[in-house]
Amino acid sequence: MECPIEVVVNLLGDKWKVLIMRNLLLRGTQRFGELSRGINGVSQKMLTQQLRQLETDGLIGRKIYPEIPPRVEYSLTEFGQTLKPVFDAMHNWGTSYLEQIGS
Amino acid sequence: MECPIEVVVNLLGDKWKVLIMRNLLLRGTQRFGELSRGINGVSQKMLTQQLRQLETDGLIGRKIYPEIPPRVEYSLTEFGQTLKPVFDAMHNWGTSYLEQIGS
Repeated sequence: MECPIEVVVNLLGDKWKVLIMRNLLLRGTQRFGELSRGINGVSQKMLTQQLRQLETDGLIGRKIYPEIPPRVEYSLTEFGQTLKPVFDAMHNWGTSYLEQIGS
Repeated sequence: MECPIEVVVNLLGDKWKVLIMRNLLLRGTQRFGELSRGINGVSQKMLTQQLRQLETDGLIGRKIYPEIPPRVEYSLTEFGQTLKPVFDAMHNWGTSYLEQIGS
């Protein structure tokens, strides 16, 4: 049997993916530009690449509105939302870490 | 204030680091060769690099026994062990995912 943690690592084992998912969890639906501005240091190329992989893996969905210019919105799928407890655990740990170092 | 999830990503935002920490959490103290065999696909160079970063960040400790040849053992520090709830959350998610896909 495969290692359960390896399953998560295979889906989220890239810091940009974790930060994209964080933004969608916290803020719901986001446009490309909003994600780009909300994630420090990510290039447009990297963001595009990681969004595509997350979509392929079924964690996020993309909706295109036929406007001019076309509007594209990203959000978590139901499957993607099931990862919330993992993000909660990271959030709790990070919060108590920041409290301890007094940041 | 810094984002708590970004704190975790900065410490663990590499799949090899997560897998190293997983091995030390599950198996306790490990020698370099044991880690190398326990982590699918990691190169010796990458493993050395990631172990050094985890040591610098205070998550793991390294103990050298003055034998011939010298024995080097790695284990989680107390600080590293505080990340267990994050790994538990990943483990739970991965387990229910594997059950659902019937693996």
